[in-house]
Parts: sequence; structure tokens; C-alpha cells
Amino acid sequence: MKLPQPFYIGLVHGPIRSKDGSEITTSVTNLDIHDIARSARTFGFKRYFLITPIKSQQSMVKKILGFWETDSGLIYNPDRKNALSEAQVIDSIEDAIEEITRIEGKRPLVVVTGANFEKYEGKEKELIQKIKIDERPMFLLFGTGWGLTASVVEQADFRLEPIFGIANDGYNHLSVRSAVAIYCDRLARSL
Amino acid sequence: MKLPQPFYIGLVHGPIRSKDGSEITTSVTNLDIHDIARSARTFGFKRYFLITPIKSQQSMVKKILGFWETDSGLIYNPDRKNALSEAQVIDSIEDAIEEITRIEGKRPLVVVTGANFEKYEGKEKELIQKIKIDERPMFLLFGTGWGLTASVVEQADFRLEPIFGIANDGYNHLSVRSAVAIYCDRLARSL
Repeated sequence: MKLPQPFYIGLVHGPIRSKDGSEITTSVTNLDIHDIARSARTFGFKRYFLITPIKSQQSMVKKILGFWETDSGLIYNPDRKNALSEAQVIDSIEDAIEEITRIEGKRPLVVVTGANFEKYEGKEKELIQKIKIDERPMFLLFGTGWGLTASVVEQADFRLEPIFGIANDGYNHLSVRSAVAIYCDRLARSL
Repeated sequence: MKLPQPFYIGLVHGPIRSKDGSEITTSVTNLDIHDIARSARTFGFKRYFLITPIKSQQSMVKKILGFWETDSGLIYNPDRKNALSEAQVIDSIEDAIEEITRIEGKRPLVVVTGANFEKYEGKEKELIQKIKIDERPMFLLFGTGWGLTASVVEQADFRLEPIFGIANDGYNHLSVRSAVAIYCDRLARSL
């Protein structure tokens, strides 16, 4: 199976919706770096952008990404370096889009996800179809905290169908790491 | 969508394969408790067993599970209590099987997963079919560390097809949290 166009993934830490609906910046967590890098690599994504405008957070991420390239990191677990080699910290969604445009020579199709979308363009099959027709790379965005802001969602090119659970009581609260894994798998199976 | 029989999930910390193939016990991690509890709840699983024979680890898990029932935990994030209400720490795989048998009045079908299986009984569709025919609850086991031991895998009733990535260079190293999420989603979509 081959991706029809290069796929990029972004985990947004700012701007993000807070619990009460205002705009905030969340902290980068170590597990989000690792788990999502591993999913992205396994499912053929070309690069994983950790998006945060906070300089001290950027330094922290760079330090973590750097560790797995040191001798102790490499000896302990060489696969981690391999996973993290495609992770990159960047200031903003717009900067990531520009970086992808620079690499690919085309502006990517910006795809957003969210558990509470009431309107969406389609499922993974429809998205793959659109990517093939448009012949543009894909940039898949995930929010931390309480999700991507309304303006990011509205400006996107494609809103993916949410992941619906099957709990009897309607419980539906996946971690972002789990949601990323599920969407990556669904996309691979829709090729 | 409705599950044909009650589904149970188990995360095994001992016995587990180590990097060099010997049997070890791994540590329970906070993120494995939370992420897998949330996936299990979202996809309708009835209970989530954290399997470890180490008493100090059991106490630690109980303390974490307890926090989300305290006032501060409930006020901060009531959904966490909801997710963790079905998590339970237990000594061994055999004890978990006995507990399920006690609850359901039938021994569960023990299903194992692993990234490196060379032989397996089938995909999620075949598993759901078997559960319907056998009319037995399902107990889905995941390993931490370097995976479930050979004897656990051999004694299981059903080995699920591994998750194959699509990376050009064959990279395939999902976290157990990601693997759980993907299998839960695949099972729900196979109903």
C-alpha cells in the first residue's frame, strides 16, 4: 500500500480551546511526543509537527528529541531515534503549512479532527479520494486540551467524521494519542 | 451497534517478555491506566484489568484509581472517574479469567495480540463471528514490555492478526496504548 500523496501530521498546543471555551496554550507532554511519533512513522507519515508558540516548551521538546540521538538513547532503544527523527517542533499551524508548502511545492490540504464536530466533509475514504483528485499533500491536525479552536476548524479544507464510540451510556472520551492511532489506521485501510 | 457478548480487556505487566526473551514483570504506568481505560469505555468494554503480581504496584494503581473518586478529582474532571470506574487491578491472567467466569457464568474466549505473530487465527471480523457462534464473553489481552510470553500466546483461544504498518522502511512500533485503540475501533467496526 502506498500513500497517494505525502502525509503530514500536526499536534496543536496553541491556540487551543480551554474547558470554558477561551483560547489557551497547553503543555507539550512527553507521551504525546513519543506515541504520536510512533503512530505517524508506522503509518507512513512524512513528518510530525509539534506546534507550540512557547519558546521554553520548544527547547524542552528539542532536548527530548535530541536525547534519543545520544549514545545512551541509541543503545537503549534505537527504534525511538527512528520514530523521533521525523518529529519537529514549530511555532504555529501557519508556519507548518508554509514548511510543507516549501518541501512539496504545493500547499497541503488541511484536515481537522474533533470529537464534537456537528458538520464534517466525510470519512477517511472520501478524504483519500479528495487527496487523489486534488493531488495535494495532506496535513492532518489534532488538538490537545479541549480541542482545536473554532477558527482553525472553520478555515480547514476538510473536517473528518468524528470517532463515535459504542458505549451504552454514550461515553466518548478518547485520548488524543488514541484518536491519532485510530485515524492513522483508518486512513491506511482506506487506501 | 451492540456487542454480541460482554468484552473484557487486560493489560499484562507480568509475566512479560523482556528485550532478551526472558520473563519479567514491567511497571504499571499512569498513562496506560488512563488511555486504555478511556478507549475501553468508549468502545463498550465491560471491565479493564491491570494485571500485575507486584503488591506495591497494585497499591499504587488503587491509589490512582481512588484519586478520581475524591472531591478534587471529580471537580477537575468527572469523565475520568467515569472511565476509571471499570478499571481493576488483579494478580494474574488466570485470576482475571476466573473473575470474568464468575461474573458471566461462562469462561471467556481468551484473545491475544502481538506485533510479531507469525501465525494467527484471523482478523476482527472472524473473531466477532467466533464470539457469536461460541456465545462466550471475550477477554482481549495486550502485553507491555516486549510482549506476551510464548506460553500465554500458545494457550490463548484466538490470536488476532497483527497491525501492519505501511512505512516504506517497514518501521512498525506502535505503543500498546495505540494498539489497544486501533483494535477497539476495528472490533467496533466489525460488529
